[in-house]
Amino acid sequence: MSVRAAVLSGPGDLSVEAFPDPGLGPGDAVVRMELSGICGTDKHIFSGEGHLYAGTEMEAQAAFPLIPGHENVGVIEELGRDAGRTLEFYGEPLSAGDRVVMCPDVVCGRCWYCRHGRMLWCVNARCYGVTLTCAEAPHLYGGWAERMVLRHDAFVYKVPEGMPAELAVLVEPFVVTQVLDEARGHSALGGQGFRGGDTIVVQGAGALGLIFVLRARIMGAGDIIVVDDAPERLARARGVGASHTLSLAETTAEERLGTVRELTGGRGADVVVDCAGVPAALPEGLELARKGATYIETGAFVDAGSVEINPHRHLCAKSIRLIGATNHAYTGYGPALKLLERYGDSAGFRSIITHTIPFERAEEAITTSLRPEAGKVLVEGGVS
Amino acid sequence: MSVRAAVLSGPGDLSVEAFPDPGLGPGDAVVRMELSGICGTDKHIFSGEGHLYAGTEMEAQAAFPLIPGHENVGVIEELGRDAGRTLEFYGEPLSAGDRVVMCPDVVCGRCWYCRHGRMLWCVNARCYGVTLTCAEAPHLYGGWAERMVLRHDAFVYKVPEGMPAELAVLVEPFVVTQVLDEARGHSALGGQGFRGGDTIVVQGAGALGLIFVLRARIMGAGDIIVVDDAPERLARARGVGASHTLSLAETTAEERLGTVRELTGGRGADVVVDCAGVPAALPEGLELARKGATYIETGAFVDAGSVEINPHRHLCAKSIRLIGATNHAYTGYGPALKLLERYGDSAGFRSIITHTIPFERAEEAITTSLRPEAGKVLVEGGVS
Amino acid sequence: MSVRAAVLSGPGDLSVEAFPDPGLGPGDAVVRMELSGICGTDKHIFSGEGHLYAGTEMEAQAAFPLIPGHENVGVIEELGRDAGRTLEFYGEPLSAGDRVVMCPDVVCGRCWYCRHGRMLWCVNARCYGVTLTCAEAPHLYGGWAERMVLRHDAFVYKVPEGMPAELAVLVEPFVVTQVLDEARGHSALGGQGFRGGDTIVVQGAGALGLIFVLRARIMGAGDIIVVDDAPERLARARGVGASHTLSLAETTAEERLGTVRELTGGRGADVVVDCAGVPAALPEGLELARKGATYIETGAFVDAGSVEINPHRHLCAKSIRLIGATNHAYTGYGPALKLLERYGDSAGFRSIITHTIPFERAEEAITTSLRPEAGKVLVEGGVS
Amino acid sequence: MSVRAAVLSGPGDLSVEAFPDPGLGPGDAVVRMELSGICGTDKHIFSGEGHLYAGTEMEAQAAFPLIPGHENVGVIEELGRDAGRTLEFYGEPLSAGDRVVMCPDVVCGRCWYCRHGRMLWCVNARCYGVTLTCAEAPHLYGGWAERMVLRHDAFVYKVPEGMPAELAVLVEPFVVTQVLDEARGHSALGGQGFRGGDTIVVQGAGALGLIFVLRARIMGAGDIIVVDDAPERLARARGVGASHTLSLAETTAEERLGTVRELTGGRGADVVVDCAGVPAALPEGLELARKGATYIETGAFVDAGSVEINPHRHLCAKSIRLIGATNHAYTGYGPALKLLERYGDSAGFRSIITHTIPFERAEEAITTSLRPEAGKVLVEGGVS
Repeated sequence: MSVRAAVLSGPGDLSVEAFPDPGLGPGDAVVRMELSGICGTDKHIFSGEGHLYAGTEMEAQAAFPLIPGHENVGVIEELGRDAGRTLEFYGEPLSAGDRVVMCPDVVCGRCWYCRHGRMLWCVNARCYGVTLTCAEAPHLYGGWAERMVLRHDAFVYKVPEGMPAELAVLVEPFVVTQVLDEARGHSALGGQGFRGGDTIVVQGAGALGLIFVLRARIMGAGDIIVVDDAPERLARARGVGASHTLSLAETTAEERLGTVRELTGGRGADVVVDCAGVPAALPEGLELARKGATYIETGAFVDAGSVEINPHRHLCAKSIRLIGATNHAYTGYGPALKLLERYGDSAGFRSIITHTIPFERAEEAITTSLRPEAGKVLVEGGVS
Repeated sequence: MSVRAAVLSGPGDLSVEAFPDPGLGPGDAVVRMELSGICGTDKHIFSGEGHLYAGTEMEAQAAFPLIPGHENVGVIEELGRDAGRTLEFYGEPLSAGDRVVMCPDVVCGRCWYCRHGRMLWCVNARCYGVTLTCAEAPHLYGGWAERMVLRHDAFVYKVPEGMPAELAVLVEPFVVTQVLDEARGHSALGGQGFRGGDTIVVQGAGALGLIFVLRARIMGAGDIIVVDDAPERLARARGVGASHTLSLAETTAEERLGTVRELTGGRGADVVVDCAGVPAALPEGLELARKGATYIETGAFVDAGSVEINPHRHLCAKSIRLIGATNHAYTGYGPALKLLERYGDSAGFRSIITHTIPFERAEEAITTSLRPEAGKVLVEGGVS
Repeated sequence: MSVRAAVLSGPGDLSVEAFPDPGLGPGDAVVRMELSGICGTDKHIFSGEGHLYAGTEMEAQAAFPLIPGHENVGVIEELGRDAGRTLEFYGEPLSAGDRVVMCPDVVCGRCWYCRHGRMLWCVNARCYGVTLTCAEAPHLYGGWAERMVLRHDAFVYKVPEGMPAELAVLVEPFVVTQVLDEARGHSALGGQGFRGGDTIVVQGAGALGLIFVLRARIMGAGDIIVVDDAPERLARARGVGASHTLSLAETTAEERLGTVRELTGGRGADVVVDCAGVPAALPEGLELARKGATYIETGAFVDAGSVEINPHRHLCAKSIRLIGATNHAYTGYGPALKLLERYGDSAGFRSIITHTIPFERAEEAITTSLRPEAGKVLVEGGVS
Repeated sequence: MSVRAAVLSGPGDLSVEAFPDPGLGPGDAVVRMELSGICGTDKHIFSGEGHLYAGTEMEAQAAFPLIPGHENVGVIEELGRDAGRTLEFYGEPLSAGDRVVMCPDVVCGRCWYCRHGRMLWCVNARCYGVTLTCAEAPHLYGGWAERMVLRHDAFVYKVPEGMPAELAVLVEPFVVTQVLDEARGHSALGGQGFRGGDTIVVQGAGALGLIFVLRARIMGAGDIIVVDDAPERLARARGVGASHTLSLAETTAEERLGTVRELTGGRGADVVVDCAGVPAALPEGLELARKGATYIETGAFVDAGSVEINPHRHLCAKSIRLIGATNHAYTGYGPALKLLERYGDSAGFRSIITHTIPFERAEEAITTSLRPEAGKVLVEGGVS
């Protein structure tokens, strides 16, 4: 029995191919795919911007040919030897029929970062749908497919009873936003970090930006200001909790700075999160930040070029605290699933999903996701 | 024109007295009182447990005679010279008719702690309604009264437009709960501090415990387990977001430990907050905590005696992180008012108020607050 | 060829026994022992206080019969398959003749704590010389012996070129003191945590206390005050950097508090570290701490009984930050070896060693270590 | 009796002028100047780069005419009313003849940052020798002079008994380096922040860079690598504890990166501190940092232009933690004086001083300080 999947052979080159039935090694499993979210990185790679982890030991290119899809939810179909006992991250037993999600990064466990419990910075990590090529057996390393293989060394999480696939599929980008927890203030005094009631600016109202708005709302933010150019995206941001939106198309940089300062007693935002995916967002975001603010640079997952900043003005004079955040913590899935279970519906997570398209129409899915009015676009997998 | 106020002349000795019209010094103001919340400390002092800040440079006794009431909201009636420009903490202008709250601690600004921005630990602090006696002019240092004086060196905060007194009066204890923000995890890894989705145990479902439940819910807690003996209090806790309640009257310590472990994969709670006000809560709370958990000791505001603990079992073997928390941060009022404005109604803050009684019936108010079924009891001030 | 080792069959019952030559599994290695330090836990177990990790999932008793010795340095004699490539923590290649140290805790890698990078809190950890019995093959799980087996799943570290065994043997307790790094202040403001120039009290001048003095000195402490009852220990503390010593025998608790306050502008110590090993140290140490001080409870490794504290006076009113610290971080060995290499001789580490006794005279070694004038006592292993 | 002082009337325009005897207001004092250190900011202002605090509410230009000198030590000559009781930061009494240092920033105490204990970020701060012009009475707002006025609202610190002026004059830049304490790791795990044994790169071996080397050594750093172009500066760095130096003149950027990686197991430095004062240092420093490293931007005190960085490569992919650090904490003086008292001589602080020149030859002093071989240049004040 062969397995069909969408394959990206190079920038812009998507097709559907058939792969041989994967043999299961000890600890491995096969899931029947349900849904796979399209992420900014997928769009960049499709568009030819596939230079990743630049400047680090793991500098890499997207590993063509590849089966896209790294935000995956599916249902266990078959378990290799011991997998039912060993595969789940928290030690939960797994059986056929269980719905699971996974962390797409497979880590080495032995590099300096892994040794220090910082596996999210593993220098040997390979990522489903991005740097794990489907040219290598067992091939099924991506979610835009009928089935996907869960390697015994992957981090797999059982989805809580009753949580639908449409909610569970959002867990991966939701874990990315956990960096806001890392920015929490260390003291009751304020002045640094993030504190309940703080003003947050989110640059970019794509899916990740919207999920940051949701995270900030769940964490007790005060004002949340979202900056984007597409009116549909800004409307969607207001729908999930943004208190103010600023259109790049209809305002000048000075006007945006003026608004943010007006809302913050003249100071600027306490926290700014860059989810814009374009280098120019960096200097503007730093201007919007107050002295001692936290700036989270999490939108620059691929190399999209350089930008000029002024070390005095943007970093030193502001006493900025900047947190770069590549990847996401494999330990965040449990808490994220718990939060989705408790707050997912009331907070309106599913409202950010605008399209669901079968993997056989992968190109339509990705071109849809590139349109300014798109929110989260999901690719439907599985056997029809 | 004299001003009437409730006066506590010693444990159990409450009466209504008249004071002369206070003269206003530069920067001072007078408010017409609206509401004043009864706090655990008020109850302890009334009951004869008025030994405070033991073991520190500011060790003190309740300063009889005193006008009780340190959780106050009122309306500006008269402003001394410059006060309209200088009194408000954030520099907001004040006019007659403005609703304000205040931090009851008046600090020196010069001791080592004040010099380090830790004014909440000021060794010369004196507290409205507790250690500021009404024997000294201008006397009106407490909220159970027609009027109260705002000293020029007090921290005073303008209440946001449209926020009713019933919500604003809760701001002081709500700021106390900001210590949960201080316990926020430092890393995305988890294992220490507080992180979205974490399991929290709150010991004691009095008003402070309930407000901790509200704070935890606003901050994105996972399961919240509340322990108390009064069924009415436990019901109230469920009403404001507790996911589980454990009755001290109906369960054994072993059963409670069993339940907490069952809900946490066998580990114990990530965070335990003591709001019980009795020493015996400490060892039980430490048993309920997991390895590396954060334990917040914030319920022991007065000296209520000692208790045995085992340094190995309760502290070292558990690698506990214990945060003692006296007083509260004067910098927390702005964020707390912002949170009350945004989440106060949806979270159900006002549901914890069970009684509102005029200051002329102060003894009824305090004895009501001592009854197990009481939630937050408010004392109504002002001129009828 | 058999291997001889000291065996503790129960409290006070030490003898020398011979074990069969261990077969080496894949990834394992054998070291010829050089030196093994005697730790407080060894003394407690010998004296019958072997109740460990009370109140946690890993609650245990010392696993008699056992070969004592968990602070070990030795030289690689034989390497199992792949061990030369896989055994060293940082990926360094290992060959016969290399000097190595090891972390005595062998962890599971799969429990919730291990999953969160907090392997030092592993609930399934078993410790060489303490909870790994020599009744199980390959038996050689302790350092008071001719040879010791390094399990493939142990954390093993290559000693830097030229570092003598007498210095390397101190690395394990030196890693324990790394908790001071964890207490570092989060802000330039001071008031919390540890900051260069701070005043530190160390309770107990046994070997661990002395190593805390050395750590504090290396980290830029200001005044270091050591409390103990033995004059020889206090002299040794002064020799490694204590600026003041207080004799329990010659001063009252009030006098000690008076001295600490006099040295700190009336406040109390910024950091207090308990290495005393007796419960009574806890309340005294908390009295010596200032408001907002950090208290490190690291001396209560075994259950030595309970003590009364006052939650108001000792925890809440002081706004204490208490860090319980069981075990030590396997990630601390690299930095600790680096520090020993750079500062070990200038700081005077080796001056704390007072006796070196062959493992064949193990009982003499441990009874020597129990004498008040003893500093660090080393047990010599290896083949004579 | 008039007072003579060096006056900078504009870029490059230095002369000696006489000012009228200052009248002392309540709380003020006059010191007879001893020494005043020349800082990078002084050099920038002399060279015409006097644009400060760009992008913040306190954006300013150097306030010509001004008396340079903000790193000052002197001896109390006269005290205004109450000043002997109120002027010293920690409450120490002051008398004529006492040696004192001061924090050059005079803060408002009322802005949002001051209110939050973050007075180092005061938006109304004015700085002796920089933004406090000598055109305003009492004029004597800088240290290159016979006498200087200590305002009642300045932060003044008594120098410990017996500490010579040559050591005390270094306290201000030494407090600047306290930001390293702020970067301390939060956990025993490592991977973030600063931890004993870590590898630090210091960019720039001017006086501030050298003092960072001294601070890092006192704090227990492992390898310290210093980058500069002047051979004299690099030699001086080795003299105060640098373990490796890299000449910008003799190596390529690739070679420097190669050396840093070789010394760190291929990873890059744990902490990088920019004291270079040129924008180009930023991207190079970020290249030298490992994943998750801390980058301290403290050398860009004045606006010296922009530089291109790549948000993906330099910030996001590296998960960098960047701390911008303008000004310095007024709370750091006590600890810094303590550290200078204890470690100042053994660490070799005074070896960084290369020239001492009377204020009457101010132009010679500043041109000397601009020469590549200069270390710390001091200006001698006082009455000859």
